[in-house]
Amino acid sequence: MRLSKIGEFCLLENLKKTLPIGEDAYIIPQKDKGLLFCCDTSVEGRHFLTSLSSFYEIGYRSCASCISDIAAMGGNPLYCLIALGVPGDYELSAIFKIYAGMKDIAAGFDMKIVGGDTIESEKLIITVSILGSAENPIARSGSKPGDLIGVTGRLGGAKKGLEVLKKGLQGFENLKKRYLMPTPRIKEGLILKDIATSMIDISDGLILDLYHLSTSSNNGMSIKKDIIPIEEGASFDDVIYSDDYELLFTFPSQTPFPKFATIIGEVVDEKGVFLDGEKIEAKGYEHFREI
Amino acid sequence: MRLSKIGEFCLLENLKKTLPIGEDAYIIPQKDKGLLFCCDTSVEGRHFLTSLSSFYEIGYRSCASCISDIAAMGGNPLYCLIALGVPGDYELSAIFKIYAGMKDIAAGFDMKIVGGDTIESEKLIITVSILGSAENPIARSGSKPGDLIGVTGRLGGAKKGLEVLKKGLQGFENLKKRYLMPTPRIKEGLILKDIATSMIDISDGLILDLYHLSTSSNNGMSIKKDIIPIEEGASFDDVIYSDDYELLFTFPSQTPFPKFATIIGEVVDEKGVFLDGEKIEAKGYEHFREI
Repeated sequence: MRLSKIGEFCLLENLKKTLPIGEDAYIIPQKDKGLLFCCDTSVEGRHFLTSLSSFYEIGYRSCASCISDIAAMGGNPLYCLIALGVPGDYELSAIFKIYAGMKDIAAGFDMKIVGGDTIESEKLIITVSILGSAENPIARSGSKPGDLIGVTGRLGGAKKGLEVLKKGLQGFENLKKRYLMPTPRIKEGLILKDIATSMIDISDGLILDLYHLSTSSNNGMSIKKDIIPIEEGASFDDVIYSDDYELLFTFPSQTPFPKFATIIGEVVDEKGVFLDGEKIEAKGYEHFREI
Repeated sequence: MRLSKIGEFCLLENLKKTLPIGEDAYIIPQKDKGLLFCCDTSVEGRHFLTSLSSFYEIGYRSCASCISDIAAMGGNPLYCLIALGVPGDYELSAIFKIYAGMKDIAAGFDMKIVGGDTIESEKLIITVSILGSAENPIARSGSKPGDLIGVTGRLGGAKKGLEVLKKGLQGFENLKKRYLMPTPRIKEGLILKDIATSMIDISDGLILDLYHLSTSSNNGMSIKKDIIPIEEGASFDDVIYSDDYELLFTFPSQTPFPKFATIIGEVVDEKGVFLDGEKIEAKGYEHFREI
Protein backbone atom coordinates (compact mmCIF):
# COMPACT_ATOMS: atom_id res chain seq x y z
CA MET A 1 0.00 0.00 0.00
CA ARG A 2 1.28 3.47 -0.88
CA LEU A 3 2.32 5.83 1.91
CA SER A 4 0.10 8.63 0.60
CA LYS A 5 -2.93 6.36 1.15
CA ILE A 6 -1.80 5.23 4.57
CA GLY A 7 -0.95 8.52 6.24
CA GLU A 8 1.82 9.22 8.72
CA PHE A 9 0.13 7.92 11.86
CA CYS A 10 -0.89 4.62 10.34
CA LEU A 11 2.70 4.31 9.10
CA LEU A 12 3.95 4.93 12.64
CA GLU A 13 1.55 2.32 14.04
CA ASN A 14 3.04 -0.14 11.56
CA LEU A 15 6.61 0.83 12.44
CA LYS A 16 5.87 0.41 16.15
CA LYS A 17 5.57 -3.32 15.53
CA THR A 18 9.23 -3.43 14.62
CA LEU A 19 10.81 -0.42 16.39
CA PRO A 20 10.72 0.99 19.95
CA ILE A 21 9.18 4.30 18.85
CA GLY A 22 6.30 6.27 20.28
CA GLU A 23 7.88 8.75 22.71
CA ASP A 24 9.14 12.26 22.06
CA ALA A 25 12.63 11.11 22.98
CA TYR A 26 14.24 7.80 23.81
CA ILE A 27 15.33 7.42 27.44
CA ILE A 28 18.85 6.03 27.80
CA PRO A 29 19.24 4.62 31.30
CA GLN A 30 22.32 5.87 33.14
CA LYS A 31 23.79 5.49 36.60
CA ASP A 32 23.06 9.01 37.83
CA LYS A 33 20.45 10.43 35.48
CA GLY A 34 18.78 9.45 32.23
CA LEU A 35 19.90 10.67 28.83
CA LEU A 36 17.34 11.63 26.19
CA PHE A 37 17.98 11.05 22.49
CA CYS A 38 15.71 12.37 19.74
CA CYS A 39 15.67 13.80 16.24
CA ASP A 40 13.36 15.87 14.11
CA THR A 41 13.33 16.60 10.39
CA SER A 42 12.01 19.74 8.67
CA VAL A 43 11.67 19.95 4.92
CA GLU A 44 10.98 22.81 2.50
CA GLY A 45 7.37 22.81 1.36
CA ARG A 46 6.14 20.78 4.34
CA HIS A 47 7.42 22.49 7.49
CA PHE A 48 8.51 25.79 6.03
CA LEU A 49 8.55 27.78 2.81
CA THR A 50 11.61 29.84 1.89
CA SER A 51 9.15 32.39 0.49
CA LEU A 52 7.64 32.97 3.96
CA SER A 53 10.50 32.30 6.40
CA SER A 54 14.01 33.78 6.36
CA PHE A 55 16.92 31.33 6.49
CA TYR A 56 17.58 32.51 10.04
CA GLU A 57 13.98 31.66 11.02
CA ILE A 58 14.15 28.28 9.24
CA GLY A 59 17.24 27.38 11.27
CA TYR A 60 15.67 28.66 14.48
CA ARG A 61 12.38 26.78 14.01
CA SER A 62 13.91 23.48 12.91
CA CYS A 63 16.00 23.45 16.09
CA ALA A 64 13.06 24.62 18.23
CA SER A 65 10.88 21.67 17.21
CA CYS A 66 13.54 19.17 18.33
CA ILE A 67 14.31 21.02 21.58
CA SER A 68 10.55 20.87 22.20
CA ASP A 69 10.73 17.04 22.17
CA ILE A 70 13.21 17.28 25.07
CA ALA A 71 10.88 19.74 26.85
CA ALA A 72 8.05 17.20 26.44
CA MET A 73 10.04 14.72 28.53
CA GLY A 74 10.85 17.26 31.24
CA GLY A 75 14.50 17.35 30.21
CA ASN A 76 17.34 19.69 29.31
CA PRO A 77 18.95 19.77 25.82
CA LEU A 78 22.77 19.31 25.99
CA TYR A 79 24.29 18.51 22.58
CA CYS A 80 22.99 18.85 19.05
CA LEU A 81 23.95 17.62 15.56
CA ILE A 82 22.69 19.26 12.38
CA ALA A 83 22.28 17.31 9.13
CA LEU A 84 21.68 19.75 6.28
CA GLY A 85 20.57 18.84 2.77
CA VAL A 86 21.03 21.93 0.63
CA PRO A 87 20.35 22.65 -3.05
CA GLY A 88 23.61 23.27 -4.96
CA ASP A 89 22.49 26.71 -6.18
CA TYR A 90 22.23 28.10 -2.63
CA GLU A 91 24.61 30.85 -1.59
CA LEU A 92 27.10 30.12 1.20
CA SER A 93 25.56 33.03 3.09
CA ALA A 94 22.24 31.12 3.28
CA ILE A 95 23.95 28.28 5.18
CA PHE A 96 25.45 30.77 7.61
CA LYS A 97 22.03 32.35 8.19
CA ILE A 98 20.47 28.94 8.89
CA TYR A 99 23.25 28.19 11.39
CA ALA A 100 22.91 31.67 12.95
CA GLY A 101 19.27 30.92 13.79
CA MET A 102 20.26 27.54 15.19
CA LYS A 103 23.11 28.95 17.25
CA ASP A 104 20.91 31.66 18.74
CA ILE A 105 18.20 29.29 19.94
CA ALA A 106 20.84 26.78 21.12
CA ALA A 107 22.60 29.48 23.15
CA GLY A 108 19.31 30.37 24.86
CA PHE A 109 19.11 26.82 26.22
CA ASP A 110 22.85 26.28 26.89
CA MET A 111 22.82 23.61 24.19
CA LYS A 112 26.04 22.99 22.24
CA ILE A 113 25.93 22.39 18.47
CA VAL A 114 28.71 19.83 18.09
CA GLY A 115 28.70 18.80 14.44
CA GLY A 116 26.66 17.38 11.63
CA ASP A 117 26.69 16.57 7.98
CA THR A 118 26.14 18.69 4.87
CA ILE A 119 25.05 17.11 1.63
CA GLU A 120 23.46 18.27 -1.60
CA SER A 121 19.72 17.68 -1.98
CA GLU A 122 16.99 18.96 -4.26
CA LYS A 123 15.10 20.76 -1.52
CA LEU A 124 16.31 22.23 1.75
CA ILE A 125 15.98 19.51 4.41
CA ILE A 126 17.19 19.75 8.00
CA THR A 127 17.51 16.94 10.55
CA VAL A 128 18.34 18.01 14.10
CA SER A 129 19.45 15.33 16.59
CA ILE A 130 19.66 16.19 20.28
CA LEU A 131 21.16 14.49 23.28
CA GLY A 132 19.57 15.75 26.48
CA SER A 133 19.34 14.81 30.12
CA ALA A 134 16.46 14.23 32.51
CA GLU A 135 16.48 13.16 36.13
CA ASN A 136 12.89 12.05 35.97
CA PRO A 137 11.73 11.77 32.34
CA ILE A 138 7.96 12.03 31.76
CA ALA A 139 6.51 9.63 29.16
CA ARG A 140 3.33 9.88 27.09
CA SER A 141 1.88 7.06 29.13
CA GLY A 142 1.16 7.23 32.85
CA SER A 143 -2.10 9.16 33.17
CA LYS A 144 -5.02 7.78 35.18
CA PRO A 145 -8.76 8.49 34.89
CA GLY A 146 -9.52 11.43 37.18
CA ASP A 147 -6.23 13.18 36.38
CA LEU A 148 -6.61 16.71 35.06
CA ILE A 149 -5.36 17.80 31.61
CA GLY A 150 -3.29 20.98 31.41
CA VAL A 151 -1.62 23.01 28.70
CA THR A 152 1.02 25.75 28.72
CA GLY A 153 0.56 29.07 26.94
CA ARG A 154 -2.10 29.77 24.31
CA LEU A 155 -2.94 27.64 21.29
CA GLY A 156 -3.68 28.21 17.59
CA GLY A 157 -1.14 30.99 17.07
CA ALA A 158 1.24 29.06 14.83
CA LYS A 159 -1.49 28.02 12.37
CA LYS A 160 -2.96 31.52 12.28
CA GLY A 161 0.51 33.06 11.95
CA LEU A 162 1.25 30.90 8.92
CA GLU A 163 -2.09 31.92 7.38
CA VAL A 164 -1.31 35.60 7.92
CA LEU A 165 2.12 35.15 6.33
CA LYS A 166 0.62 33.31 3.35
CA LYS A 167 -1.82 36.19 2.80
CA GLY A 168 1.09 38.66 2.96
CA LEU A 169 -0.68 40.72 5.64
CA GLN A 170 1.18 43.49 7.48
CA GLY A 171 1.31 43.46 11.28
CA PHE A 172 0.16 40.47 13.38
CA GLU A 173 3.76 40.21 14.63
CA ASN A 174 2.83 38.06 17.63
CA LEU A 175 1.02 35.47 15.48
CA LYS A 176 3.81 35.43 12.90
CA LYS A 177 6.40 34.87 15.63
CA ARG A 178 4.38 31.93 17.00
CA TYR A 179 4.90 30.23 13.64
CA LEU A 180 8.35 31.49 12.65
CA MET A 181 10.22 31.33 15.95
CA PRO A 182 8.38 29.22 18.51
CA THR A 183 9.79 28.98 22.04
CA PRO A 184 10.29 25.41 23.28
CA ARG A 185 8.91 25.09 26.83
CA ILE A 186 12.05 23.71 28.48
CA LYS A 187 11.69 25.91 31.57
CA GLU A 188 8.04 24.92 32.00
CA GLY A 189 8.78 21.21 31.36
CA LEU A 190 11.38 21.19 34.13
CA ILE A 191 8.73 22.46 36.55
CA LEU A 192 5.94 20.21 35.23
CA LYS A 193 8.09 17.05 35.47
CA ASP A 194 7.49 17.09 39.24
CA ILE A 195 3.71 16.92 38.92
CA ALA A 196 2.92 15.46 35.46
CA THR A 197 1.76 11.85 35.07
CA SER A 198 2.18 12.08 31.26
CA MET A 199 3.36 14.76 28.87
CA ILE A 200 3.74 15.57 25.14
CA ASP A 201 4.48 18.69 23.11
CA ILE A 202 1.82 19.91 20.71
CA SER A 203 3.40 19.39 17.31
CA ASP A 204 0.50 17.71 15.48
CA GLY A 205 -2.35 19.90 16.77
CA LEU A 206 -4.26 19.67 20.09
CA ILE A 207 -6.68 16.89 19.15
CA LEU A 208 -4.11 14.55 17.57
CA ASP A 209 -1.70 15.02 20.46
CA LEU A 210 -4.52 14.27 22.92
CA TYR A 211 -5.07 11.10 20.91
CA HIS A 212 -1.36 10.25 21.31
CA LEU A 213 -1.69 10.62 25.11
CA SER A 214 -4.94 8.65 25.10
CA THR A 215 -3.47 5.77 23.09
CA SER A 216 -0.27 5.63 25.16
CA SER A 217 -2.17 5.48 28.48
CA ASN A 218 -5.02 3.37 27.16
CA ASN A 219 -7.70 5.74 28.45
CA GLY A 220 -9.54 8.83 27.20
CA MET A 221 -9.13 12.60 27.19
CA SER A 222 -12.18 14.78 27.76
CA ILE A 223 -11.77 18.52 27.17
CA LYS A 224 -14.06 21.56 27.25
CA LYS A 225 -13.94 23.93 24.31
CA ASP A 226 -14.64 27.15 26.22
CA ILE A 227 -11.77 26.76 28.67
CA ILE A 228 -9.06 26.14 26.04
CA PRO A 229 -6.65 29.10 26.05
CA ILE A 230 -6.70 30.36 22.45
CA GLU A 231 -4.18 32.86 21.07
CA GLU A 232 -5.66 36.29 20.37
CA GLY A 233 -6.68 36.42 16.72
CA ALA A 234 -6.91 32.63 16.37
CA SER A 235 -9.97 30.35 16.55
CA PHE A 236 -10.68 26.81 17.80
CA ASP A 237 -10.35 25.53 14.22
CA ASP A 238 -6.78 26.87 14.15
CA VAL A 239 -6.04 25.01 17.40
CA ILE A 240 -6.77 21.66 15.73
CA TYR A 241 -4.07 22.12 13.10
CA SER A 242 -1.58 24.27 15.01
CA ASP A 243 1.92 23.10 15.94
CA ASP A 244 2.41 25.55 18.79
CA TYR A 245 5.06 23.54 20.68
CA GLU A 246 3.20 24.14 23.95
CA LEU A 247 3.22 21.32 26.50
CA LEU A 248 0.15 19.15 27.01
CA PHE A 249 0.21 17.14 30.23
CA THR A 250 -1.87 15.30 32.80
CA PHE A 251 -1.53 15.51 36.58
CA PRO A 252 -3.39 14.29 39.69
CA SER A 253 -6.36 16.48 40.61
CA GLN A 254 -5.90 18.50 43.81
CA THR A 255 -2.20 18.87 43.03
CA PRO A 256 -1.21 22.55 42.91
CA PHE A 257 -0.15 23.49 39.39
CA PRO A 258 1.91 26.43 38.09
CA LYS A 259 0.33 29.68 36.92
CA PHE A 260 1.63 29.32 33.34
CA ALA A 261 -0.67 26.32 32.83
CA THR A 262 -4.41 26.16 32.13
CA ILE A 263 -6.68 23.19 32.89
CA ILE A 264 -8.64 22.15 29.79
CA GLY A 265 -10.25 18.87 30.87
CA GLU A 266 -9.77 15.52 32.54
CA VAL A 267 -8.69 11.96 31.87
CA VAL A 268 -11.61 9.51 31.53
CA ASP A 269 -12.01 5.72 31.30
CA GLU A 270 -13.46 5.56 27.80
CA LYS A 271 -10.83 5.57 25.08
CA GLY A 272 -10.73 8.46 22.63
CA VAL A 273 -10.85 12.24 22.74
CA PHE A 274 -14.05 14.02 23.75
CA LEU A 275 -14.91 17.66 23.12
CA ASP A 276 -17.76 18.88 25.35
CA GLY A 277 -18.77 15.24 25.82
CA GLU A 278 -18.85 14.35 22.12
CA LYS A 279 -16.19 12.08 20.64
CA ILE A 280 -14.07 14.05 18.16
CA GLU A 281 -12.22 12.31 15.34
CA ALA A 282 -8.42 12.25 15.26
CA LYS A 283 -7.51 15.09 12.97
CA GLY A 284 -4.55 17.43 12.74
CA TYR A 285 -1.41 17.93 10.79
CA GLU A 286 -0.26 14.72 9.16
CA HIS A 287 2.31 13.84 6.50
CA PHE A 288 1.76 11.57 3.54
CA ARG A 289 -2.01 11.78 3.65
CA GLU A 290 -3.53 13.01 0.37
CA ILE A 291 -5.85 15.93 1.06
CA MET B 1 29.12 32.44 -3.73
CA ARG B 2 27.11 29.38 -4.80
CA LEU B 3 27.74 26.05 -3.08
CA SER B 4 28.22 24.26 -6.40
CA LYS B 5 31.21 26.56 -7.10
CA ILE B 6 32.65 26.19 -3.62
CA GLY B 7 32.58 22.42 -3.13
CA GLU B 8 31.93 20.50 0.04
CA PHE B 9 35.36 20.77 1.63
CA CYS B 10 35.65 24.50 1.14
CA LEU B 11 32.15 24.76 2.65
CA LEU B 12 33.32 22.72 5.64
CA GLU B 13 36.38 24.95 6.06
CA ASN B 14 34.03 27.91 6.19
CA LEU B 15 31.70 26.22 8.67
CA LYS B 16 34.65 25.34 10.93
CA LYS B 17 35.00 29.03 11.66
CA THR B 18 31.65 28.99 13.39
CA LEU B 19 31.13 25.35 14.50
CA PRO B 20 33.24 22.76 16.36
CA ILE B 21 33.27 20.32 13.43
CA GLY B 22 36.10 18.36 11.86
CA GLU B 23 36.07 14.98 13.62
CA ASP B 24 34.22 11.82 12.68
CA ALA B 25 32.27 12.05 15.92
CA TYR B 26 32.01 14.60 18.71
CA ILE B 27 33.49 13.48 22.03
CA ILE B 28 31.21 14.16 24.99
CA PRO B 29 33.28 14.12 28.18
CA GLN B 30 31.89 11.86 30.90
CA LYS B 31 32.99 10.77 34.34
CA ASP B 32 33.83 7.16 33.43
CA LYS B 33 34.16 7.04 29.66
CA GLY B 34 33.55 9.36 26.75
CA LEU B 35 30.39 9.35 24.67
CA LEU B 36 30.57 9.79 20.90
CA PHE B 37 27.86 11.59 18.96
CA CYS B 38 27.71 11.69 15.15
CA CYS B 39 25.33 11.68 12.20
CA ASP B 40 25.49 10.85 8.52
CA THR B 41 23.09 11.54 5.67
CA SER B 42 22.60 9.47 2.52
CA VAL B 43 20.48 10.69 -0.36
CA GLU B 44 19.11 9.04 -3.50
CA GLY B 45 21.18 9.95 -6.54
CA ARG B 46 24.26 10.88 -4.51
CA HIS B 47 25.02 7.97 -2.18
CA PHE B 48 22.81 5.32 -3.71
CA LEU B 49 20.49 4.69 -6.64
CA THR B 50 17.28 2.72 -6.11
CA SER B 51 17.96 1.21 -9.55
CA LEU B 52 21.21 -0.38 -8.32
CA SER B 53 20.61 -1.06 -4.60
CA SER B 54 17.71 -2.87 -2.98
CA PHE B 55 15.87 -1.06 -0.16
CA TYR B 56 17.45 -3.53 2.26
CA GLU B 57 20.94 -2.63 1.00
CA ILE B 58 20.15 1.10 1.11
CA GLY B 59 19.17 0.77 4.78
CA TYR B 60 22.22 -1.36 5.54
CA ARG B 61 24.69 0.97 3.84
CA SER B 62 23.29 4.23 5.26
CA CYS B 63 23.69 2.80 8.76
CA ALA B 64 27.13 1.33 7.98
CA SER B 65 28.55 4.72 6.97
CA CYS B 66 27.54 6.25 10.32
CA ILE B 67 28.74 3.25 12.38
CA SER B 68 32.03 3.67 10.52
CA ASP B 69 32.41 7.17 12.01
CA ILE B 70 32.28 5.56 15.46
CA ALA B 71 34.86 2.96 14.34
CA ALA B 72 37.12 5.81 13.21
CA MET B 73 37.24 7.07 16.82
CA GLY B 74 37.96 3.61 18.26
CA GLY B 75 34.49 3.42 19.80
CA ASN B 76 31.42 1.22 20.07
CA PRO B 77 27.99 2.23 18.67
CA LEU B 78 25.23 2.06 21.33
CA TYR B 79 22.05 3.85 20.24
CA CYS B 80 20.79 5.00 16.86
CA LEU B 81 18.05 7.29 15.52
CA ILE B 82 16.78 7.10 11.93
CA ALA B 83 15.33 10.14 10.15
CA LEU B 84 13.67 9.02 6.92
CA GLY B 85 12.46 11.29 4.15
CA VAL B 86 10.35 9.16 1.82
CA PRO B 87 8.45 9.95 -1.41
CA GLY B 88 4.67 9.63 -0.92
CA ASP B 89 4.32 7.07 -3.71
CA TYR B 90 6.55 4.52 -1.92
CA GLU B 91 5.00 1.28 -0.71
CA LEU B 92 4.93 0.59 3.02
CA SER B 93 6.91 -2.57 2.30
CA ALA B 94 9.82 -0.42 1.04
CA ILE B 95 10.08 1.26 4.47
CA PHE B 96 10.13 -2.13 6.15
CA LYS B 97 12.90 -3.34 3.85
CA ILE B 98 14.98 -0.22 4.60
CA TYR B 99 14.51 -0.85 8.33
CA ALA B 100 15.28 -4.56 7.92
CA GLY B 101 18.71 -3.69 6.49
CA MET B 102 19.30 -1.23 9.31
CA LYS B 103 18.20 -3.66 11.99
CA ASP B 104 20.46 -6.41 10.64
CA ILE B 105 23.59 -4.30 10.64
CA ALA B 106 22.65 -2.78 14.02
CA ALA B 107 22.20 -6.25 15.54
CA GLY B 108 25.67 -7.23 14.32
CA PHE B 109 27.17 -4.45 16.43
CA ASP B 110 24.80 -4.69 19.43
CA MET B 111 23.48 -1.25 18.54
CA LYS B 112 19.88 -0.39 19.44
CA ILE B 113 17.70 1.55 17.00
CA VAL B 114 15.67 3.67 19.42
CA GLY B 115 13.53 5.95 17.29
CA GLY B 116 13.53 8.55 14.59
CA ASP B 117 11.32 10.64 12.40
CA THR B 118 9.52 9.90 9.13
CA ILE B 119 8.54 12.69 6.78
CA GLU B 120 7.58 13.03 3.15
CA SER B 121 10.29 14.23 0.76
CA GLU B 122 10.79 14.26 -2.98
CA LYS B 123 13.72 11.84 -2.94
CA LEU B 124 14.62 9.13 -0.47
CA ILE B 125 16.91 10.70 2.16
CA ILE B 126 18.21 9.01 5.30
CA THR B 127 19.93 10.62 8.28
CA VAL B 128 21.38 8.22 10.85
CA SER B 129 22.45 9.63 14.24
CA ILE B 130 24.47 7.46 16.60
CA LEU B 131 25.43 7.72 20.24
CA GLY B 132 28.49 5.59 20.97
CA SER B 133 31.07 5.15 23.68
CA ALA B 134 34.86 5.20 23.73
CA GLU B 135 37.25 4.83 26.64
CA ASN B 136 40.06 6.40 24.69
CA PRO B 137 38.73 8.15 21.56
CA ILE B 138 41.22 8.63 18.72
CA ALA B 139 41.04 11.98 16.90
CA ARG B 140 42.14 12.95 13.39
CA SER B 141 44.94 14.98 14.94
CA GLY B 142 47.79 13.56 16.98
CA SER B 143 50.24 12.12 14.44
CA LYS B 144 53.93 13.05 14.52
CA PRO B 145 56.53 12.99 11.71
CA GLY B 146 58.13 9.57 11.72
CA ASP B 147 54.84 7.80 12.58
CA LEU B 148 53.85 5.09 10.14
CA ILE B 149 50.57 5.18 8.16
CA GLY B 150 48.43 2.05 8.16
CA VAL B 151 45.17 0.96 6.58
CA THR B 152 42.79 -1.93 7.23
CA GLY B 153 41.56 -4.28 4.49
CA ARG B 154 41.87 -3.60 0.78
CA LEU B 155 40.91 -0.40 -1.06
CA GLY B 156 39.09 0.51 -4.26
CA GLY B 157 36.43 -2.21 -4.06
CA ALA B 158 33.46 0.09 -3.41
CA LYS B 159 34.17 2.31 -6.41
CA LYS B 160 34.77 -0.68 -8.70
CA GLY B 161 31.68 -2.44 -7.32
CA LEU B 162 29.52 0.57 -8.14
CA GLU B 163 30.97 0.65 -11.66
CA VAL B 164 30.21 -3.05 -12.17
CA LEU B 165 26.62 -2.50 -10.94
CA LYS B 166 26.17 0.48 -13.26
CA LYS B 167 27.30 -1.63 -16.22
CA GLY B 168 24.85 -4.37 -15.20
CA LEU B 169 27.61 -7.02 -15.21
CA GLN B 170 26.95 -10.49 -13.82
CA GLY B 171 29.25 -11.87 -11.10
CA PHE B 172 31.82 -9.71 -9.27
CA GLU B 173 29.89 -10.44 -6.06
CA ASN B 174 32.78 -9.44 -3.79
CA LEU B 175 33.17 -6.03 -5.45
CA LYS B 176 29.41 -5.43 -5.46
CA LYS B 177 29.22 -6.26 -1.76
CA ARG B 178 32.02 -3.79 -1.01
CA TYR B 179 29.75 -1.05 -2.36
CA LEU B 180 26.30 -2.32 -1.35
CA MET B 181 26.95 -3.63 2.16
CA PRO B 182 30.26 -2.36 3.55
CA THR B 183 31.42 -3.64 6.95
CA PRO B 184 32.31 -0.87 9.42
CA ARG B 185 35.63 -1.70 11.11
CA ILE B 186 34.42 -1.46 14.73
CA LYS B 187 36.34 -4.57 15.82
CA GLU B 188 39.54 -3.33 14.21
CA GLY B 189 39.07 0.21 15.58
CA LEU B 190 38.82 -1.13 19.13
CA ILE B 191 42.19 -2.83 18.68
CA LEU B 192 43.82 0.10 16.85
CA LYS B 193 42.76 2.63 19.52
CA ASP B 194 45.57 1.29 21.71
CA ILE B 195 48.33 2.08 19.20
CA ALA B 196 46.95 4.80 16.86
CA THR B 197 48.08 8.42 17.18
CA SER B 198 45.36 9.55 14.74
CA MET B 199 42.57 7.80 12.84
CA ILE B 200 39.84 8.38 10.22
CA ASP B 201 37.57 6.15 8.14
CA ILE B 202 37.95 6.26 4.37
CA SER B 203 34.68 7.79 3.20
CA ASP B 204 35.99 10.38 0.74
CA GLY B 205 38.70 8.29 -0.95
CA LEU B 206 42.26 7.55 0.23
CA ILE B 207 43.90 10.78 -0.91
CA LEU B 208 41.26 13.15 0.45
CA ASP B 209 41.16 11.34 3.78
CA LEU B 210 44.97 11.50 3.99
CA TYR B 211 44.55 15.24 3.43
CA HIS B 212 42.08 15.37 6.34
CA LEU B 213 44.66 13.68 8.61
CA SER B 214 47.43 15.94 7.29
CA THR B 215 45.43 19.13 7.89
CA SER B 216 44.29 18.06 11.37
CA SER B 217 47.87 17.24 12.51
CA ASN B 218 49.51 20.07 10.59
CA ASN B 219 52.04 17.77 8.93
CA GLY B 220 52.24 15.64 5.78
CA MET B 221 51.42 12.10 4.66
CA SER B 222 53.82 10.29 2.32
CA ILE B 223 52.62 7.01 0.80
CA LYS B 224 54.01 4.51 -1.67
CA LYS B 225 51.76 3.39 -4.51
CA ASP B 226 53.06 -0.18 -4.81
CA ILE B 227 52.43 -1.11 -1.18
CA ILE B 228 48.79 0.06 -1.06
CA PRO B 229 46.55 -3.00 -0.64
CA ILE B 230 44.14 -2.82 -3.60
CA GLU B 231 41.02 -4.95 -3.90
CA GLU B 232 41.26 -7.65 -6.56
CA GLY B 233 39.74 -6.32 -9.77
CA ALA B 234 40.21 -2.67 -8.78
CA SER B 235 42.98 -0.22 -9.72
CA PHE B 236 44.78 2.67 -8.00
CA ASP B 237 42.47 5.13 -9.78
CA ASP B 238 39.51 3.43 -8.09
CA VAL B 239 41.22 3.85 -4.71
CA ILE B 240 41.19 7.65 -5.08
CA TYR B 241 37.41 7.82 -5.37
CA SER B 242 36.41 4.80 -3.30
CA ASP B 243 34.45 5.07 -0.03
CA ASP B 244 35.53 1.70 1.36
CA TYR B 245 34.95 2.51 5.05
CA GLU B 246 38.33 1.00 5.91
CA LEU B 247 40.31 2.66 8.72
CA LEU B 248 43.27 4.89 7.94
CA PHE B 249 45.52 5.56 10.93
CA THR B 250 48.98 6.58 12.09
CA PHE B 251 51.06 4.95 14.81
CA PRO B 252 54.59 5.20 16.24
CA SER B 253 57.15 3.24 14.21
CA GLN B 254 58.53 0.14 15.97
CA THR B 255 55.13 -0.42 17.61
CA PRO B 256 53.81 -3.90 16.80
CA PHE B 257 50.66 -3.62 14.67
CA PRO B 258 47.86 -6.12 14.00
CA LYS B 259 47.88 -8.47 11.00
CA PHE B 260 44.71 -7.01 9.50
CA ALA B 261 46.57 -3.75 8.79
CA THR B 262 49.02 -2.82 6.04
CA ILE B 263 51.66 -0.07 6.22
CA ILE B 264 51.35 2.30 3.25
CA GLY B 265 53.72 5.14 4.19
CA GLU B 266 54.85 7.54 6.87
CA VAL B 267 54.09 10.91 8.38
CA VAL B 268 56.45 13.69 7.22
CA ASP B 269 57.14 17.30 8.20
CA GLU B 270 56.09 18.95 4.94
CA LYS B 271 52.37 19.57 4.71
CA GLY B 272 50.35 17.81 2.03
CA VAL B 273 49.97 14.31 0.64
CA PHE B 274 52.83 12.73 -1.31
CA LEU B 275 52.61 9.73 -3.63
CA ASP B 276 56.02 8.17 -4.33
CA GLY B 277 57.62 11.46 -3.30
CA GLU B 278 55.45 13.67 -5.56
CA LYS B 279 52.80 15.95 -4.09
CA ILE B 280 49.36 14.75 -5.20
CA GLU B 281 46.42 17.13 -5.33
CA ALA B 282 43.44 16.71 -2.98
CA LYS B 283 40.91 14.81 -5.05
CA GLY B 284 38.20 12.32 -4.20
CA TYR B 285 34.49 12.16 -3.75
CA GLU B 286 33.03 15.55 -2.97
CA HIS B 287 29.52 16.96 -2.86
CA PHE B 288 28.39 20.23 -4.42
CA ARG B 289 31.32 20.49 -6.81
CA GLU B 290 30.27 20.76 -10.45
CA ILE B 291 32.03 18.07 -12.49
